[in-house]
Amino acid sequence: MEQLKVIKIGGNVIDNPAALESFLERFSTIEGAKILVHGGGAIASRMLKTMGIEPVMIEGRRVTDADTLQVVTAVYAGLINKTIVATLQKYGCNAAGLSGADCNAIVSRKRPATPIDYGFVGDVEKVNPQAFGMFLTAGITPVVCAINHDGKGTLLNTNADTVASSIATAMSGSYDTELVMCFEKNGVLYDKDDDNSVIAQIDKPLFEQLKAEGRINAGMLPKLKNAFDAIAGGVSRVTIKNSDNLTKNIGTTIL
Amino acid sequence: MEQLKVIKIGGNVIDNPAALESFLERFSTIEGAKILVHGGGAIASRMLKTMGIEPVMIEGRRVTDADTLQVVTAVYAGLINKTIVATLQKYGCNAAGLSGADCNAIVSRKRPATPIDYGFVGDVEKVNPQAFGMFLTAGITPVVCAINHDGKGTLLNTNADTVASSIATAMSGSYDTELVMCFEKNGVLYDKDDDNSVIAQIDKPLFEQLKAEGRINAGMLPKLKNAFDAIAGGVSRVTIKNSDNLTKNIGTTIL
Repeated sequence: MEQLKVIKIGGNVIDNPAALESFLERFSTIEGAKILVHGGGAIASRMLKTMGIEPVMIEGRRVTDADTLQVVTAVYAGLINKTIVATLQKYGCNAAGLSGADCNAIVSRKRPATPIDYGFVGDVEKVNPQAFGMFLTAGITPVVCAINHDGKGTLLNTNADTVASSIATAMSGSYDTELVMCFEKNGVLYDKDDDNSVIAQIDKPLFEQLKAEGRINAGMLPKLKNAFDAIAGGVSRVTIKNSDNLTKNIGTTIL
Repeated sequence: MEQLKVIKIGGNVIDNPAALESFLERFSTIEGAKILVHGGGAIASRMLKTMGIEPVMIEGRRVTDADTLQVVTAVYAGLINKTIVATLQKYGCNAAGLSGADCNAIVSRKRPATPIDYGFVGDVEKVNPQAFGMFLTAGITPVVCAINHDGKGTLLNTNADTVASSIATAMSGSYDTELVMCFEKNGVLYDKDDDNSVIAQIDKPLFEQLKAEGRINAGMLPKLKNAFDAIAGGVSRVTIKNSDNLTKNIGTTIL
């Protein structure tokens, strides 16, 4: 099977234009089929504040009312997505920006309003591998933001790690797929205050043990859940690493 | 040759959610290959004002400084484009939103700073018919905003009528192409104050005559220039009509 890399970048890279450009230059050198999934960063919160809308976060997730949905759709699917695509074109990587609505690539369902009403927040229901396959076959790199739709005309704000994991899982039927989750740490850390204490490999039993020992911080739990979901779903290899190490074979490998 | 319709809608439809939904429902019933090009509308100006940035227009064109470019990219390529795409999906029309940067579909060059410095405003340099052809062949309708790129990493705000005319011209090599420019009037009017005085057909000599008589208002001149450019470029048929009449055979036909 042909190889495919699904690479996720988070807000910290997006918030720093020089870091983003440097990351995209490295990304563009990766040979073969690849998909980039990007998070949101602080730009949406800044724009909301400028417009007099106070951002509301519960357990690290953005509460998305109708006004907030308009701004995050604008910023994630417009400003950030097209800035990334234009930069990749500059580096010779033919890219196409996608929300889940485009080509009906990702359908989500609105999260139930209880116990917490997050508003226009979605959970991934279905990824259409044909949509991504069309671009990959044409040698075009999909650049995916975490705005999806419900198929009934409503856009939904979705977790970008989950989007990346779901795409990798859906593509693993037709590609030998690797998921690379980049963030600001060097990997999953044994001691959260020591960025050099990277755990090279982690499997389910070790994860449960570390969790019981309280060694995995709260922010890492959903990321690791997405990583294990991808492995369970047929993805060949999942790594969690610093975005500076994109093209280096270091970080944490999920088994 | 297979038939293709390139349809442009302007700001007045976009500014009215009910009118937009109704238009898109009609659009989705059009059989065969089609491309939708959309303008911006007043949403960007409202968002700029909310953020304390005063919109500047010269001769009907938006002066686009760096902050304004960020907002129009967000609103046109994000909010408006994805709202349209999600609505089309609801009506069973598989659509994909595109800026010119996506798939390197449209390359523009920054307009020279003299005599008027419009900032990050572009003029269309090249449309890649292969990019649009990929979607059409797959039965997917491209939905195009008027944000392009220069191939060097810079996004540029471009006139949507020109984008529509340029796409229609570029596609006319491989499709029997019709360009339909929708706006808020019933067509090119003989008396600008009488919306029933639609000129059914207009050719270059009649246009020059009407212009000399002062019967064509200033706002119509660039639209008609784009229309005649499309005809000269090989487009089979160009009509200018009210967006309410999208699926009706009335309006002004350019010869």
